[in-house]
Parts: sequence; C-alpha cells; structure tokens
Amino acid sequence: MINRLIQRIQQTNAPIVVGLDPMLKYIPQHIQKAAMSAFGETLEGAAEAIWQYNKGIVDAICDLVPAVKPQIAMYEQFGVPGLAAFRRTVEYCKSRGLIVIGDVKRGDIGSTSEAYAVGHLGKAAVGSKEYYGFDEDFATVNPYLGSDGVRPFLKVCKEEKKGIFVLVKTSNPSSGEFQDCLVLGKPLYELVGEKVAQWGEECMGEGYSYVGAVVGATYPEVGRIMRKVMPKTYILVPGYGAQGGKGADLVHYFNDDGLGAIVNSSRGIIAAYQQEKYAGFGEYGYADASRAAVLDMKEDIAQALNSR
Amino acid sequence: MINRLIQRIQQTNAPIVVGLDPMLKYIPQHIQKAAMSAFGETLEGAAEAIWQYNKGIVDAICDLVPAVKPQIAMYEQFGVPGLAAFRRTVEYCKSRGLIVIGDVKRGDIGSTSEAYAVGHLGKAAVGSKEYYGFDEDFATVNPYLGSDGVRPFLKVCKEEKKGIFVLVKTSNPSSGEFQDCLVLGKPLYELVGEKVAQWGEECMGEGYSYVGAVVGATYPEVGRIMRKVMPKTYILVPGYGAQGGKGADLVHYFNDDGLGAIVNSSRGIIAAYQQEKYAGFGEYGYADASRAAVLDMKEDIAQALNSR
Repeated sequence: MINRLIQRIQQTNAPIVVGLDPMLKYIPQHIQKAAMSAFGETLEGAAEAIWQYNKGIVDAICDLVPAVKPQIAMYEQFGVPGLAAFRRTVEYCKSRGLIVIGDVKRGDIGSTSEAYAVGHLGKAAVGSKEYYGFDEDFATVNPYLGSDGVRPFLKVCKEEKKGIFVLVKTSNPSSGEFQDCLVLGKPLYELVGEKVAQWGEECMGEGYSYVGAVVGATYPEVGRIMRKVMPKTYILVPGYGAQGGKGADLVHYFNDDGLGAIVNSSRGIIAAYQQEKYAGFGEYGYADASRAAVLDMKEDIAQALNSR
Repeated sequence: MINRLIQRIQQTNAPIVVGLDPMLKYIPQHIQKAAMSAFGETLEGAAEAIWQYNKGIVDAICDLVPAVKPQIAMYEQFGVPGLAAFRRTVEYCKSRGLIVIGDVKRGDIGSTSEAYAVGHLGKAAVGSKEYYGFDEDFATVNPYLGSDGVRPFLKVCKEEKKGIFVLVKTSNPSSGEFQDCLVLGKPLYELVGEKVAQWGEECMGEGYSYVGAVVGATYPEVGRIMRKVMPKTYILVPGYGAQGGKGADLVHYFNDDGLGAIVNSSRGIIAAYQQEKYAGFGEYGYADASRAAVLDMKEDIAQALNSR
C-alpha cells in the first residue's frame, strides 16, 4: 500500500492528504436540515449529516489528492451510528480511488493490539468466514506501550500489504511534555523515531517502508532531524493550515527525491467555505470551496518544494 | 463516580474489576452455535455471541464485584456490529449496578480528544438534543500527547462526575522501551505519574481524585514507588492472573486505608472454565466457573492485604 500511496502522490502531483474530521458546526445548514428531517435530531441524524457532507467533499476532491484521513473520534462521539458513518466514508473513499488513512491512534498490547489491527486493517474470522471491520488502508498507532503494542499491527500489515503511521512528534502545543524529554541527551521522539525505522526494516516496500511516522508541521526543525533519523520512513505531517504550518516550513520533511512526506490539512480544506478567502462559494458551494482550497494547498507546497 | 467506585469496593469488599475482553475462542460452543444459527457466520453473529457470553458472566458476578472493564478492541475487531455489542454490554452492566471502566486507551489533541471524551463519557449535542454515545463511567487514556490530550477528558469528567485512568506503566514485557527511559534520573512513567497527580488536584472527590492511573501488576516495585508519587490517585492494576501477577505482589499498590487500588483480571475470570482448576464446571457452567474464580481472587487479595 505504501507503493500505491507513492504512485498516487506522483500521479496527482500532490503530497497531500485531506483530513475528513467533520464537526456539526462545519456542516452547511441545508445538509443538517435534510438529515435531521429524515432521521430526527438523533445520533442517526448526525451520522447522516456527516456522511452527506463527506460525500460532497470527496466527490469534489477525489481527482486532486491521493488520500484522505478520517479522524475516527469525530465519528465515535456519535456512538454506534457515528461509527457506521465512518465505515461508510472509508468504503466510499476507496470506491473513488482514494487511499484511506484511518486516524485512530490505537495502541494496546498483545492480543488487544492485534484486535485493533484486525478491526482497522485486517479481517476478523467468524466461524469459517472472514470479514473486514473498518478496512482502512493505513492506521495511526500510539507507541507509548512499546514494541508489544506495535508488532501485532506489523503482522497484519504484512498479511494485508497495508501500513501504519506511528506517532513520533505530534503537532499540539503540549506535545513536548513527554515527547521532548531528554533521554541520554536525545529527545524521546527521536528514540521513538529510531524504533520506527527499525520496525520499518521488517516491512519494506520499494524504497519506503510500510511503517510511517507522524511528525507535526508545527515543529519544522524536528522535521529536518527526523527526516535523517528515519530516511526510509514516510512522514505524515499534520498541522498544516489551521494549526499554523505553511508549505515553506515543510520542505525539510521531504527527501531530495520529492518524496517521503504527505501533508495533512483538515479544517482548512473541509470547512474552507467558512474562511473569508473562500466565503464567496457560500454554504451550498462548500464542496467547491474545498476543491479550491486543495488547489491552493497544492500550489503552496509545490512552490515550496520547487524553490528549495 | 470515584466516590461511588470506592463505596462499591467497600460494600463488596472486593478491590476487583473484571475485564470483559471476549475472544471467540473463549465463548462456549453452544453460545456460538446459537448466535451463528440466528445471524449466520457474520459480524452480527460474532457480536451476538459476545453479548450472550458477557450477559451470562455479568449475571453471575454482579453481586461480587464493584466494576467491570470491557476492552473495546475486542469488540471493535468485529466492526460496527461489535461496537453495538460493546454499547449493549456497557448499558447492561450499569443496569446490574456495576461501574463500567471503558478500556479504550484513547488520546488525541484538542477538539479531537474532546470528541473521544464526549463519545465515551459525555453527551453529544445534535440540534437541541443531547445523547450519550457509549456512556461508560470511566475511560482509560493514553498520555503520549501531553496535557492537551488529557484536559478535554477532565472537562467532561467534571461535567459528568465521571473519571479517567491514565496509562502510566503498562503490564506488558516491552512497556519499559519508552516508559522506563530515564529523564533527569527519573523514569518517564514517574514524570507521567506526577502529571496525573497534578491533573487530579483539579478533580478531587472525597479523598481520591477523578484522575486515576494504570500501573501494571507485573512490576510490583513500580507500584510501591508510584503509590507514593500519586497518593490521592486510584490505581487500576492490570496483569493479575493470566499475565502473572499475584495478590501478594499487589499490596504496595494500596494505601494503608486498604483503598487506592483496584485490580483487574480478564481471561482468568471470563475464561475460567478453560483452566484445569475450574474445568469441572464445563462449558455450560462457564458463568459459574467465572463466579468461582472471582471468589478465589477476592480471597487471594484479601489474604494478601490482611497479612501485610
């Protein structure tokens, strides 16, 4: 799947992933009203609104980018109906040719981590049959529990030819509280990065490994260092746009071949119509506003990479 | 909710939580057959088998223990139907008077962490209505992302009078890879524990805070230290039984008042009938075997606490 991700990045010329992190306050009134009039002001109504909203965005951007990254928390908050909308979104995105990175940040130990890996990337056995639970192409994984938590994901990745992105340095202001702690003179995130590179050696695609890393756009200097620590690791970079990251900050996350990183933007794309810059599209044009925002982001990153 | 947990621990005289971590291989054949003949060999069939199995155990043990801890991964592996079985299990356990600790190990940043907190502990707003998603009483939380990831849970805990248990030192063999890293001479888990104690000061119940910690039974010496670092923190102790922890190892996790810790056993209770010791109960007596295993665990821990 890492090979396919790279191929699609090259075909679209866009090292970009769109974060499908719907909040009700982003969803245009007409979509919310239609959903609530069909299902009432219920969890099912919220889930329907999310799904319709996502579908509009996906249809508008699926030819421009290689991948989407639905954030499962935004669905999970609406309980079982919300998770059914997540499942439906994953399925639809794949039917439109998009690679799906499930931003699930799971991590546990042994058989429990294996259950998460099975649920998100693999197949669960039921009697003589096997079924995919959520069936993303990649999942994000939390490393705090150590190798025991990550290896079950590697096992499923090998079977399914899928991949993971391990949290190394997150984009939030307090990410340094534990991640920056100096251990024998090195920050913890660097140790985690070294482990990611090791795990990746066991799961190599053509040039890059199936084991990626999350390194936030908000810490460009960290990007430069981690690029060297994990040369064959694809870096998923959150924090572009709404969180403050700009294309020029991101050039060091890429290798000289122009590969090695994929930059995420969520709110900046999916709620573009709520920004002054794209307000002209209006609520009914929200999906076109998202398309315009993707085109601008592509341009910003391409310029930054060309002028380095 | 921490006050209610303590009250129930005192009433049952059992600082014990039963981990409802169902795997199909634990579920007696007659339950699996009935579920599959009703729903086929499908995800729905697996979910039904899990639910019926859980119900039998819960009915057999609900007067003996204060709490249960369903591990969501074991449900999530069966996709949306599995998560519906999780929801149903949570609801049923509460109807039987049990406190429910959702072992979800979630953790993200800002609005995303808030969405997890809302989904598991709080209420999601949909138009003019509000709904609980999964509605556990406590949730486990991963600290790797720092305070930004934990504070949204504290907010919801205050609103709902619920609580969390933050991963400090997990019970698995490789937990030391990152958690034991020395930072200015202290292991990382101790720094995390200090933060847990700080977060807890903002959310105090009577004597203990709403912010608990997970410290594995497999590292008794760590339990002794962390008991002092976090004097007002309830410690959730996984790793008893199947993972190797014994009552005698656990006395240092408790304060002198006999409170301060609650010990989890999962497989050792729910699949007791598969152990030689309880094999006499047979598959049809699986729930009675679980009851016998709970009584033995109560005895083991009570003896250890009495003889210290």
